[in-house]
Amino acid sequence: MSAPPSVSVSGAGARPEAGVSSLRWEERPEGPVLVLLDQTRLPLEEVELVCTDVPALVEAIRTLAVRGAPLLGLAGAYGVALAAARGFDVEEAAGMLERSRPTAVNLGHGVRLAVQAYRAGLRAGGDGARAAAAALEAARTLHREDAGASARMARRGAELLDELLPGGGLRILTHCNTGALVSGGEGTALAVVTEVHRAGRLRRLWVDETRPLLQGARLTAYEAARHGMPYSLLTDNAAGSLFSAGEVDAVLIGADRIAADGSTANKIGSYPLAVLAKYHKVPFVVVAPMTTVDPETPDGASIEVEQRAGHEVTDAPSLPGAGGGFAVAPPGTQAYNPAFDVTPPELITAIVTEEGVVSPVTRDALGELRTRSRSGNGMMSA
Amino acid sequence: MSAPPSVSVSGAGARPEAGVSSLRWEERPEGPVLVLLDQTRLPLEEVELVCTDVPALVEAIRTLAVRGAPLLGLAGAYGVALAAARGFDVEEAAGMLERSRPTAVNLGHGVRLAVQAYRAGLRAGGDGARAAAAALEAARTLHREDAGASARMARRGAELLDELLPGGGLRILTHCNTGALVSGGEGTALAVVTEVHRAGRLRRLWVDETRPLLQGARLTAYEAARHGMPYSLLTDNAAGSLFSAGEVDAVLIGADRIAADGSTANKIGSYPLAVLAKYHKVPFVVVAPMTTVDPETPDGASIEVEQRAGHEVTDAPSLPGAGGGFAVAPPGTQAYNPAFDVTPPELITAIVTEEGVVSPVTRDALGELRTRSRSGNGMMSA
Repeated sequence: MSAPPSVSVSGAGARPEAGVSSLRWEERPEGPVLVLLDQTRLPLEEVELVCTDVPALVEAIRTLAVRGAPLLGLAGAYGVALAAARGFDVEEAAGMLERSRPTAVNLGHGVRLAVQAYRAGLRAGGDGARAAAAALEAARTLHREDAGASARMARRGAELLDELLPGGGLRILTHCNTGALVSGGEGTALAVVTEVHRAGRLRRLWVDETRPLLQGARLTAYEAARHGMPYSLLTDNAAGSLFSAGEVDAVLIGADRIAADGSTANKIGSYPLAVLAKYHKVPFVVVAPMTTVDPETPDGASIEVEQRAGHEVTDAPSLPGAGGGFAVAPPGTQAYNPAFDVTPPELITAIVTEEGVVSPVTRDALGELRTRSRSGNGMMSA
Repeated sequence: MSAPPSVSVSGAGARPEAGVSSLRWEERPEGPVLVLLDQTRLPLEEVELVCTDVPALVEAIRTLAVRGAPLLGLAGAYGVALAAARGFDVEEAAGMLERSRPTAVNLGHGVRLAVQAYRAGLRAGGDGARAAAAALEAARTLHREDAGASARMARRGAELLDELLPGGGLRILTHCNTGALVSGGEGTALAVVTEVHRAGRLRRLWVDETRPLLQGARLTAYEAARHGMPYSLLTDNAAGSLFSAGEVDAVLIGADRIAADGSTANKIGSYPLAVLAKYHKVPFVVVAPMTTVDPETPDGASIEVEQRAGHEVTDAPSLPGAGGGFAVAPPGTQAYNPAFDVTPPELITAIVTEEGVVSPVTRDALGELRTRSRSGNGMMSA
């Protein structure tokens, strides 16, 4: 069970669809497999990892070949389904998956959903095949729900932009990667951009490179290119001169966690964009699923910000097979390297979720949306 | 005359002084030489280039081994002196030096100063040795003046910070490299930081890495380390969270050009810091010699901003001998890569020059300082 994932390579032009298939289930003659796009190789190579068992999937999760909160949830659920379909020990596989990235909340959630379905299948019929089918159905349901949430965020976000900025092409600035590579659908902020592009309203997508790990340069530019969007890459510090030249109509970002008051933790570099947007009177919009809103976190000050290893800053970026990783700063240099920053609600024009839009962003409005969402009729809109 | 510069290597601990000697004239038994610190190899190696003729110096200028406006002026003047002292054709050498980086105003200025001194020496005595000595004296005078200007900016800047932020240690954020590596003295903004450090008031220097070319990570961190400053390196986009946490007491930057109204062109990424500083009520101070103030440029909109090659953004940074330079963005990615941005006077707390401090920054106050400076009693202070 410890063989590495098998690998197949397809060129950039090999697939007909414009979007990205970051993860899919395939029934093959030799049995079902989980096919992952290896995100560590992007954008230099499009390499698919074909996982035939859970240890291969765990390795893909550990090496960040598959990453992003919602996508990890799907990987966990499909991983359980794979173990069940191929007759491995499902409980053991579930434990391995959950332990592969212990802080990834969605991963554990996806695993548990599929395990519960598997157990319910066993109890209902006693048949391993039926239980495996139940686990797979749970994974597919999660996948559909995730894609559906993306589609609803995309539509609501595009409608909001139509209201805020009627007529003409839009120049949208985004940060980090929030597209199909982190989601079972088209993502969050980048899903809105994709919707705007399909409607013929995207004049330009400004892509922040997003230091230190360059998710903008590597992943968002990759997705924008596949969609045929008009996009330009910039260093994060060049956004200011775009604002000052009047070249930004709106900023769209995702979120890692939204506190009960609307304070939004997102990739480092989001907060300076919010301040620039405020100074230049440009809408600053957060796009995230309701699962990102955490009522247990009362405000921005309560959000703990992860400090990451200094070598991400002191060393040049590296890509597998391409090199890099050498020191660019003197030996012994200390780095300040927080993973996130926190943007307070007064700097956020709107929060777009699959259940509705909150604008202006207040604790009460966000609480009301949560209540409506739980009661199943969260069709509140701005 | 086409031999490469000879090279000698000295380790990081080999020199007793804390500061950096970026350029020096040495009388050696075999004749005079110009010794340059090769800035392309920093901070990985401290390699000195020993130039015995002008073609070697021209190569060092072209490859950016020596860079920075004031330092290029010194290189030009000493280059003329070197040609004269070694009996080469001085007029030919001057032409080669001027053409090596045609847009570097200071380079041509330094060359002409030394050539004029050389010609005057010839006219006065007719003796080549006396003319060569006159050229060398012109270079040394320029060097002393440059170092003197740095020292006066450092003192005035430190006094300003004492006034604005009395008592306690200072946490200063800086961008790009403005130290001894660009100057015959200790530089501009970093000279002020060095003065504050010597006075025991530097609590922390926050060093922006300064994408795309990483002058902060490579050069400012190197100078800070040599001075034993408490410093931390950060990605440019992490500055926002420092402001938001109240961890920045002042921002100090240099300038590439200051318009007559005080609008300041400086390394890309300066403007967002000015907006963040304004939002957080933190002093934002520009430190630059009077030669940077250009009365022919009426305002910020008149400053032409150089757009640089996209590969600086689409490819990973490279260092000689260390690798890098591979693509991090998809093939065909277009980049927006301006070299500078422009900060308007209303976002600048003060402009510190060797002749005085202007605060608040207005067209009139800057004009008055220029007039006083030209009349030789520019001892105006804020």
